[in-house]
Amino acid sequence: MNSNSEESKDPELRRVHTTKSYTFEGQRGWRRYRALRPGLGMWHDVKRRLPYYWSDLVDAWTYRTFASTVRMYFVNLLPAIAFTLDMTRRTGEFYGINEALFASALAAMVFSILSAQPLTIVGVTGLISLFNYTTYDIIKQYDVTLYPQFMAWVGIWGSIFHWIVSFLNYCDYMKYITDFSSESFGLYVGIIYIIKGVEELVNEFSVAGSTAGYLSCLIAILYFGSVYALEKLGSSTMWKPWCRSILADYSFIFPTLFWVGFAHFPGRLHHSGITYVPIHKAFHPTQPRSWLIDFWNLDAKWVFVALPFGFLLMLLFYYDHNVSSLTAQARQFPLKKPAGFHWDFFLLGCTTFVAGILGLPLPNGLVPQAPVHTDSLTIYETHVDVVRTIDGGELRRPRVEATAVVEQRVSHFLMGLALIGTMTGPLLVVLHTMPAAVFGGVFFLVGWGSIETNGVLQKLIYLQAETRFLESSHPLTTIRRRKIALYISLQILGVAATIAISQSIAAIGFPVLIIALIPLRTFLMPKWFTRKELSVLDSLTAKNKAVLASLGGRPQDIGYFDEGEEAAGAIEGIDSERDNIVGLRLERSRSRGAVRQRMGSITRQSTEH
Amino acid sequence: MNSNSEESKDPELRRVHTTKSYTFEGQRGWRRYRALRPGLGMWHDVKRRLPYYWSDLVDAWTYRTFASTVRMYFVNLLPAIAFTLDMTRRTGEFYGINEALFASALAAMVFSILSAQPLTIVGVTGLISLFNYTTYDIIKQYDVTLYPQFMAWVGIWGSIFHWIVSFLNYCDYMKYITDFSSESFGLYVGIIYIIKGVEELVNEFSVAGSTAGYLSCLIAILYFGSVYALEKLGSSTMWKPWCRSILADYSFIFPTLFWVGFAHFPGRLHHSGITYVPIHKAFHPTQPRSWLIDFWNLDAKWVFVALPFGFLLMLLFYYDHNVSSLTAQARQFPLKKPAGFHWDFFLLGCTTFVAGILGLPLPNGLVPQAPVHTDSLTIYETHVDVVRTIDGGELRRPRVEATAVVEQRVSHFLMGLALIGTMTGPLLVVLHTMPAAVFGGVFFLVGWGSIETNGVLQKLIYLQAETRFLESSHPLTTIRRRKIALYISLQILGVAATIAISQSIAAIGFPVLIIALIPLRTFLMPKWFTRKELSVLDSLTAKNKAVLASLGGRPQDIGYFDEGEEAAGAIEGIDSERDNIVGLRLERSRSRGAVRQRMGSITRQSTEH
Repeated sequence: MNSNSEESKDPELRRVHTTKSYTFEGQRGWRRYRALRPGLGMWHDVKRRLPYYWSDLVDAWTYRTFASTVRMYFVNLLPAIAFTLDMTRRTGEFYGINEALFASALAAMVFSILSAQPLTIVGVTGLISLFNYTTYDIIKQYDVTLYPQFMAWVGIWGSIFHWIVSFLNYCDYMKYITDFSSESFGLYVGIIYIIKGVEELVNEFSVAGSTAGYLSCLIAILYFGSVYALEKLGSSTMWKPWCRSILADYSFIFPTLFWVGFAHFPGRLHHSGITYVPIHKAFHPTQPRSWLIDFWNLDAKWVFVALPFGFLLMLLFYYDHNVSSLTAQARQFPLKKPAGFHWDFFLLGCTTFVAGILGLPLPNGLVPQAPVHTDSLTIYETHVDVVRTIDGGELRRPRVEATAVVEQRVSHFLMGLALIGTMTGPLLVVLHTMPAAVFGGVFFLVGWGSIETNGVLQKLIYLQAETRFLESSHPLTTIRRRKIALYISLQILGVAATIAISQSIAAIGFPVLIIALIPLRTFLMPKWFTRKELSVLDSLTAKNKAVLASLGGRPQDIGYFDEGEEAAGAIEGIDSERDNIVGLRLERSRSRGAVRQRMGSITRQSTEH
Repeated sequence: MNSNSEESKDPELRRVHTTKSYTFEGQRGWRRYRALRPGLGMWHDVKRRLPYYWSDLVDAWTYRTFASTVRMYFVNLLPAIAFTLDMTRRTGEFYGINEALFASALAAMVFSILSAQPLTIVGVTGLISLFNYTTYDIIKQYDVTLYPQFMAWVGIWGSIFHWIVSFLNYCDYMKYITDFSSESFGLYVGIIYIIKGVEELVNEFSVAGSTAGYLSCLIAILYFGSVYALEKLGSSTMWKPWCRSILADYSFIFPTLFWVGFAHFPGRLHHSGITYVPIHKAFHPTQPRSWLIDFWNLDAKWVFVALPFGFLLMLLFYYDHNVSSLTAQARQFPLKKPAGFHWDFFLLGCTTFVAGILGLPLPNGLVPQAPVHTDSLTIYETHVDVVRTIDGGELRRPRVEATAVVEQRVSHFLMGLALIGTMTGPLLVVLHTMPAAVFGGVFFLVGWGSIETNGVLQKLIYLQAETRFLESSHPLTTIRRRKIALYISLQILGVAATIAISQSIAAIGFPVLIIALIPLRTFLMPKWFTRKELSVLDSLTAKNKAVLASLGGRPQDIGYFDEGEEAAGAIEGIDSERDNIVGLRLERSRSRGAVRQRMGSITRQSTEH
């Protein structure tokens, strides 16, 4: 390992490891078939990433790691608890806070230590909550006492499918993921979060009455407003860069502390009867059971009924986890270290197995939190762009540039330790002081964060603008408006269908719909759009060579100009249009960057963070 | 009058009337003394304005008049009711809705028909509410039954002082009003509005309990958010200009209808127990009394105690009414017709007398609603500014230009008729459906509208910005930051002192503090700031010749470059910095205009409204 650390300091040598060929394209005979070369992808993943392990530890000694740990602790924990509140109610209190914390901590430990890509945060998502309570609704129609064992078997089958997929190199197909489907998914997840936020507040009315309900709505809205305002300030040009950086890094923390305290003000507020996070004895399951589920006691019939559920679970994770990972390594982040999709999916099979037999909610990659992790580790520099006008005037505007990412596994690991700490008695009591209303606000924040910068919304706004204000250098002006409308209509249709199914008993089938967007994009859409249109409208979500190396290289033609053609200047400034689907802070870099690209004569004035 | 209408169509002839000399400057002997030539100002006001009377009627036949009538009905009525809710509680229910409506309608009728400047909306303000309940608090310590007669005498004395001031031409001193004091006053009023909004919501908790209280907070916040969002959309570049124009014109109406309806949803919302606007028998005083107060039954002792109160009242109206009028005719509005401060102040004395002996809250000029009236009558054109950069790039941005104002007295008159209509039984019942919570939102809206675009806040934001992002063409960059800080500190100090006194029993003395800002600015500040600094920081609130003609012409040197010097290019682009203190929509024109001035090579692309 010591020799590797030497090695990793040499960027050229890194490059060799990073892009070492792993591909099925252009192979002949039996070598063409992925299934016939099991473990090839995983083997390459490990071989490619292992040399960086030591640097993943030593690179971590920066302030960014600390800020990222604190931010991710909140951004991971708060939504996990939020979803658990919902899941607890809807699964007969089978999954409680202790299970959610255990699952989050388990995933954080395993993935921070063993994963090929420790930037991908793994934890309890809204979709697994949806999956779990839909399964509960189905099982309840037969015999609700089967639920624990049944879920254990879903986990077991799911993990088997995970292992099959990762051994047979099927993660490769993730390279076909473009913004078309990752934006749709982001929008879907954002809307589901906001629906959950509303449901959380509605629940407050049913459980605790009108007074608590209205107060909860108030707290949720004001909490949302406070965090949002701090984030906006953090991405403004007010005060010094270090001050803005603190606001952006800790935008979740100050409002959380304030509004939790607010709910405990003596008098009227304290007596309003709002509900708090329900807790149980530390380190014990919520139900009176041992941690290990007696899954061997389930009838063989039910074991096999669990099989298709396990397959759907795998489909969900196949998409959800890999897209989290892709967006955490998306093209706007200047990543240097390689990805490892096959290995990480194998690892996810392992955590699925363990979490399954322990009766935990199954953790997987978090959208939109995973890219927030990379964002929190990215070193941004704010430059002043001075644009000179023909007659000697000047315009100044900030441009935020992502210069490097602190790629390491320590922040993920420390966050995991903090989660384990949270499982102890004293910190559980602290959790209990948090009103459920704050989690309504968390839902709105995370959901809106995924919607506000979403390409679907941005294109919709573009179409609404009065045309005379559109700058002719805007990439979208080079194609017909009708085609833009068609493109986002397809996305909105996909999102609407998925949301509709999510609200029904058929909800567990929603991964099929989401995944169907990939072949739609790859096979059908090139027939409806010209190459140029797709080039302007769409792009690979991740196009970094280090990332694509783990997926067998760049995809073959999917209907738009590839890198070579772009470099030849076929279309100029296209990327500026859609550099991001993720966080608030990133949106800043996107829009500022776009402005810059369009303007040309720019003098860089100064460079600070 | 027919001949006048002919005349008024000739702009040259208009100009003659408009600027016909009325001044005390440069006079010799007894003619120098304003007091020795009583009625001179009023006489000139009438002589100057009367020729426009016919055009004030015929110019009104445009859609703007209709939109303005509807907007002003809401913008006048809602805050009036809001303040009345507060005033009713704090004056032992002496002043109720019927009194407020009567006062508003009376003022609207008198001023729309007889005033020299019908743009100035006159009605029930927050400051008269403050004045009335502070007086109540004082009287209550002796004998609360004296209150009606005492207030009648305050009105009578007040009106006598009004008449003295207007006959002795003392309104002239209003020409010394610069942004220094009008911005401070705007900020003060804005903060008072927001405090009242909070008090309104707090009252809901005391009167109707927690459930109603929290629901009211929710409604107030969401109502504020809805109107604010519509206003922002109306000043964006989305959709077509006519569509934005509708949003801006009726931004108050749709949310008001929605949130009033919301409070009546059957079930939980309807049973929350929130309070509604209290109403009484139509056309009857709230108290069991006849409309005419028996002021002749007050002891002579108390009659004379009322005298200083009347004087303070006159001071309040002297400042408040004339500043309303000035801001309604502020420099960003391209007004053509002349002002008439002396005559209007005389008229205000008359309404004060009538309202006083009828036991109504005394109406006077409304800040910030009066400038909203002018704004709603202004024809804005949105242009595209195409800025070319050195290397052939382009930037497009909207610039809003105020091309004309529909100056007429019909919108004011129709609004008055609508107020009279509101006094009738059926419409009073409609008023009763409005939850008090909506008025909390109205307070926030009107208050924030006065704060958001206020020069004090804008300069504060300027000082907070990271300096490297400040464009060198920004006028404020030409002076030292310390001086900007000193300037706004003086304003903030004045505002803070006035707010502090407003919260105490000495509240009726606050007009003295406000008026003290004028001599501070005129005599002291030129010693602390250079001419150049004051030129950049400050400006006459109204500098239109047609307006200043009624105040005896431009003021003599008050420490900054006057028009001649500015025209000579002494300082360039100064005005772009501070073109406004009023509405949201105006802010748009200000900021866009400033951008344009700084950029030079601009091609006007198209011209639409």
